[in-house]
Amino acid sequence: MLGPGRAELLERISSTGSIAAAARDMGMSYKRAWMLIETLNAMFRAPVVDSSRGGPGGGGAILTETGQTVLAQYRALEARAIAAGAEEISNLQAMLRDIPDGK
Amino acid sequence: MLGPGRAELLERISSTGSIAAAARDMGMSYKRAWMLIETLNAMFRAPVVDSSRGGPGGGGAILTETGQTVLAQYRALEARAIAAGAEEISNLQAMLRDIPDGK
Repeated sequence: MLGPGRAELLERISSTGSIAAAARDMGMSYKRAWMLIETLNAMFRAPVVDSSRGGPGGGGAILTETGQTVLAQYRALEARAIAAGAEEISNLQAMLRDIPDGK
Repeated sequence: MLGPGRAELLERISSTGSIAAAARDMGMSYKRAWMLIETLNAMFRAPVVDSSRGGPGGGGAILTETGQTVLAQYRALEARAIAAGAEEISNLQAMLRDIPDGK
């Protein structure tokens, strides 16, 4: 329902107040960001983004209360998953090839 | 490094002994499956798929020992994450819109 990319998009809309700015920051087209938001808005019982509000003069976008809850629950899920799977994550990382510059 | 789609691809290669069959079962082009495998093979210290072996007359593909370990660790991580995040997953699911036919 939600993955790292969509969660980041919601987070950036929340911080920038703008779908266009969020898309730009993620190197994503405005059209793609809009489609992802429309999918999310249709997926949940209430919209997660309200694009008729936000921004200094309106015309921006905000996370609705549902959107804020969805994002918070997703981040909590992610934190629990990382904590619970620490051993497996470490095992998998140890099998990864070294990348120059530590990146 | 690995997500649900790549894990499923590895699993299907393991069960079918064929990249082409695995791709077909997932509705994915052979080219895309190959690119994903090449990415994974380069990402880990040892290849995860050996496409010079497997299949009755050769020409198929098998998971290497590294590939089997990667897949097993990923599935274990997934199980731990689902168990640890049960409350958040349930909260998120409760916010989803009902879909007709219970699908």
